[in-house]
Amino acid sequence: MSLAPWRSAIASALDHNSSLVYARYLQLATVRVNGLPANRTLVFRGFLEATNQLKFITDSRTEKIEQIQQQPWAEACWYFPHTREQFRITGTLTLVAGGDSQHDLAPARITTWQELNDAARLQFAWPHSGKPRNKDEQAAFFPPPPDSRQPLPNFCLLLLDPIQVDHLVLRKEPQNRWLYYHDDQSGWTTQEINP
Amino acid sequence: MSLAPWRSAIASALDHNSSLVYARYLQLATVRVNGLPANRTLVFRGFLEATNQLKFITDSRTEKIEQIQQQPWAEACWYFPHTREQFRITGTLTLVAGGDSQHDLAPARITTWQELNDAARLQFAWPHSGKPRNKDEQAAFFPPPPDSRQPLPNFCLLLLDPIQVDHLVLRKEPQNRWLYYHDDQSGWTTQEINP
Repeated sequence: MSLAPWRSAIASALDHNSSLVYARYLQLATVRVNGLPANRTLVFRGFLEATNQLKFITDSRTEKIEQIQQQPWAEACWYFPHTREQFRITGTLTLVAGGDSQHDLAPARITTWQELNDAARLQFAWPHSGKPRNKDEQAAFFPPPPDSRQPLPNFCLLLLDPIQVDHLVLRKEPQNRWLYYHDDQSGWTTQEINP
Repeated sequence: MSLAPWRSAIASALDHNSSLVYARYLQLATVRVNGLPANRTLVFRGFLEATNQLKFITDSRTEKIEQIQQQPWAEACWYFPHTREQFRITGTLTLVAGGDSQHDLAPARITTWQELNDAARLQFAWPHSGKPRNKDEQAAFFPPPPDSRQPLPNFCLLLLDPIQVDHLVLRKEPQNRWLYYHDDQSGWTTQEINP
C-alpha cells in the first residue's frame, strides 16, 4: 500500500495544529435509517497501519451502528483552526464489533482498546447512552475500570476508507482547493479546483 | 414567538467561547441527491429575528442547493472547544435565493448581505466554486467589490429551523446531556439523558 497523495496534507495539518487537543476532533455525517442526515463529533485515532483508513472508536449501543449497517457511506468534515483549512473526506465505513472475533481486523480492535487511556475505556462501562438519565444511579457512571487488555463487548473499532478528499485552504488570497479522488483503474487523481 | 429552551445554552456557549473566531463555525450535514451524506463547515450568522432559526449564507452555485431542494432535512454539529460541549441540531432548511423576490424572507436576505464585510461579499463574485481552477485567470479572484446594498443574484440566505437539539457537555464528571424536542402540540420538551 502506498500513502494516498492527500496524506501529506493531513499530516502537515495535524503537525501545525498539534497544540490544540480538539484539532483531532472531526464531524462524521451518516444517513439515518429513515433517510435523514446525522452528524456527530468523533476523535481521530490515527490511520490503520499500512492503509489510508481513518480510525475511530464507538459503542455498539449508539444509533450510528444501525445507520452504518444500512448505509456505510459517510462524509467526515475536519476543520483545522490554526491553519484555517478543511478536509471533506468521503468514503465507506467498516465496523469491527465485539462479536466479530473472526474478522481480519479483530486484532486491530483489541490493539486500539489497549492504546486508549483509562478515562476513554471507562466510558464503555457507563449506562446506555441516549437513554433517560436516572439521577439516583450516579454510581453507575463511576464503575470499576475495565480490563485494559480485553475490550468490553460493546467496544467497536470504526474505520473510514476514503474514496474522495476535498481540501480547502482558506488562509491565502485567493484561497486554494484540491480534489483527490480514487478509482480502481487509475488509483488516486489530484485536481486543483476553484475554492 | 418565545425563545426555545436550548437558546440560553447556545447563548452561554457563544459567550464563553467568544475569544475563538471559529467557535462560530459548525458542520452541516445534508443528504446528496444519490442518497449519500454530505458535510461541510458553515459560519453561524446569528438567529433570524423573532425566531429560533439559525442563519447561514451560501452560493446558489454550490452542490448543497440541489441537495436541499430534494431533501430539506439537515443536522448541524457544533462543537465549542473552550467549554467542551456539543450541540447536534436537527431540523429543516429554507433557502432564500436571488430569484425569490416575492418570498416573505427576501428582505432578510438583503439585510444579511448588507451586514457582511467586504471580504465575505467578494467571494460571491468569484468564479464557480468546485470547477477546475484556471491558473491563467487569477484576476477573476480579485474582482471589483460588489454593491454593498444589493446582493449578487447567486447570494442565498439559508435557515435551519430546529425540531431537535441534543446538547452534550463533556467538561464535568460524569458528563451531562439534554435532549430538547419539539412537536406542534406540546411545543418544546426537555429530557435529561445519559451521555
